[in-house]
Amino acid sequence: MKESHLRVSKRLRGHLAYSPGEQPSEKQAVVKLNTNENPYPPGPSVREAINQEVQSLNLYPNPASQNLRQVIAELHGLTTSQIIVGNGSDDILNLCVRCFSDDDLKVGMLYPSYSLYEVLTGVQGSEMVRVPFNDNQFSLPTAHILSSGVNLFFLTNPHAPSGRVYALEELRKILGDFPGLLVIDEAYADFAPQNAVSLLHEYENLIITRTLSKSYSLAGLRIGYAMGHPKIIEQLDNIREVYNVDRLAQVAAIAALQDRNYFQDCLEKVFRQRDWLVQKMVECCWSTIPSGANFIFVEPKNKAGESGSEVALSLFRYLEKHKVLVRYFPRHTLTNSFLRISVGNESEMVILWETIQSWITTEK
Amino acid sequence: MKESHLRVSKRLRGHLAYSPGEQPSEKQAVVKLNTNENPYPPGPSVREAINQEVQSLNLYPNPASQNLRQVIAELHGLTTSQIIVGNGSDDILNLCVRCFSDDDLKVGMLYPSYSLYEVLTGVQGSEMVRVPFNDNQFSLPTAHILSSGVNLFFLTNPHAPSGRVYALEELRKILGDFPGLLVIDEAYADFAPQNAVSLLHEYENLIITRTLSKSYSLAGLRIGYAMGHPKIIEQLDNIREVYNVDRLAQVAAIAALQDRNYFQDCLEKVFRQRDWLVQKMVECCWSTIPSGANFIFVEPKNKAGESGSEVALSLFRYLEKHKVLVRYFPRHTLTNSFLRISVGNESEMVILWETIQSWITTEK
Repeated sequence: MKESHLRVSKRLRGHLAYSPGEQPSEKQAVVKLNTNENPYPPGPSVREAINQEVQSLNLYPNPASQNLRQVIAELHGLTTSQIIVGNGSDDILNLCVRCFSDDDLKVGMLYPSYSLYEVLTGVQGSEMVRVPFNDNQFSLPTAHILSSGVNLFFLTNPHAPSGRVYALEELRKILGDFPGLLVIDEAYADFAPQNAVSLLHEYENLIITRTLSKSYSLAGLRIGYAMGHPKIIEQLDNIREVYNVDRLAQVAAIAALQDRNYFQDCLEKVFRQRDWLVQKMVECCWSTIPSGANFIFVEPKNKAGESGSEVALSLFRYLEKHKVLVRYFPRHTLTNSFLRISVGNESEMVILWETIQSWITTEK
Repeated sequence: MKESHLRVSKRLRGHLAYSPGEQPSEKQAVVKLNTNENPYPPGPSVREAINQEVQSLNLYPNPASQNLRQVIAELHGLTTSQIIVGNGSDDILNLCVRCFSDDDLKVGMLYPSYSLYEVLTGVQGSEMVRVPFNDNQFSLPTAHILSSGVNLFFLTNPHAPSGRVYALEELRKILGDFPGLLVIDEAYADFAPQNAVSLLHEYENLIITRTLSKSYSLAGLRIGYAMGHPKIIEQLDNIREVYNVDRLAQVAAIAALQDRNYFQDCLEKVFRQRDWLVQKMVECCWSTIPSGANFIFVEPKNKAGESGSEVALSLFRYLEKHKVLVRYFPRHTLTNSFLRISVGNESEMVILWETIQSWITTEK
């Protein structure tokens, strides 16, 4: 290819693509605990809604996902002008970066947290300010956030990969004094004892993002949304792709959000398995961060009672060899002696634990 | 809201949101000929594929749409490294703008053509160069394109809203001398006697975009793709959203692309109705541009044999009042005496024509 043809935007110079957790092909029999998916398929009302809609697929979707916005607004006691729907919450996070950052307006994030924030900021060519933690318990570095000088800050709550939940009072301390917009990414909030929706009535510089990928079992359909002040939502709406959410995603999301019994049922099963797994780990004297999410962040110990990055990597590789996929983040000292393990169904948890036991026994 | 909280990216200063054709609610009984949808629903294999996939919706999709890329590559005699799939071709067009334009690298388009190019360029904060036509037959302004000084040029072929088809020889004249990337947007190419895929073997500075929204009856599912040199595809891939195409869209697209009989059958019905409608218009001595798309661009005449913007607007409003939706582009002298009418099914075409007849009779 002639050099002259491929002049790439200078904004992409600092960009590195995101690496998702491995998606094995359907034919491989693995226990997949690496991307925090829900172990249960969506409920029968979702199938029914999709089936009804197939005959209309020759027609464009409603551009604004209007009916879905209405259902979301009612669920949270908000108005539709406070809601925007995206092709996954990643779409919404991207809109935030594109709307509220540029060469001068910086973006901030807790570091480590969801690395996609950094990828999206890189594509926009904006500067990312990583705000580090002050301790190994992932306590909120409030003073650093407030003095970060950014226009847009991404705060994952419950935090990933630690699972730690930040209290509303801590969030209030940021929102009251922060001169920019705070995005609270509540991808895992349905698994936590609380969420920040009530703060929307107190603060205007707040955007809360949600996804139906985890708690509603719809990772395969890509539906996320944001809640915020109508002026913010209007800005995001203004630059979203015209038909960003397809017809099947719109009707499936409505069905999933409205079937509260199925939703609660799945949540409770996840909670039971989370409790069981934590109990097992506590019995082994493994450290975990108390989790408000559908995963456990745990520091494994070997037979000799040692922990550390070599031990975590050893278990990670052993599990992988035995077809149990979990996530290991080797690049940061706060994460490299831990593994992040999604909460699966009962039989998956049993296989996981048996495999861990066999690692402890055979590990040298 | 405090002013300090809502600092918007300076790149969005010139941005105006896209206005899609009206999407009436499902309850309204209208003849919808305003957004070039296929009048036929997708075939039974699409329904079957979707139905099979619902049980896996709790799992993330394949990030690269790998199986779908394979099917597309085989269809066009290309390799998977020459294919990228998007959430509608709008997603792909957006990736092109984000990859290959910035404050210095400009974007160009035929003017008028698909106004979304300008919207996407506005969101990126890049400069758009509108290349006007030299005549009212929408002949290709080749010299202007070559001297436009842009890094990325969008050429819609068949052209919209005129429906005009540009010959491969004309495209070669651009590709051979153009120093940037040429995007040939072939959204309507399946309705045309030819397409530019063979040019991929001759030129490296070419990206061809396609959509399954029109010829494959999947406007509601948002699937588009691009074909190009592996180096270009790699760049686009590098900045696309991780899971940009959902599970149902991936399997539905595969099913739709593989059912060649259903596809051909729908195409032939559209051709019959297009021919019938053009014939009726010719009998009335209405000017049309020969169409290689699933719409007709026509200059209507009133009872007195007059044409012009007032006549077009009069018919547009009359049709709207009688629940027949077509598209009118009032802002440009090349389009404001024309209407763009999508080719519908047989009964829709009959209703359209009867309504036009009644307008001719009653119009003052």
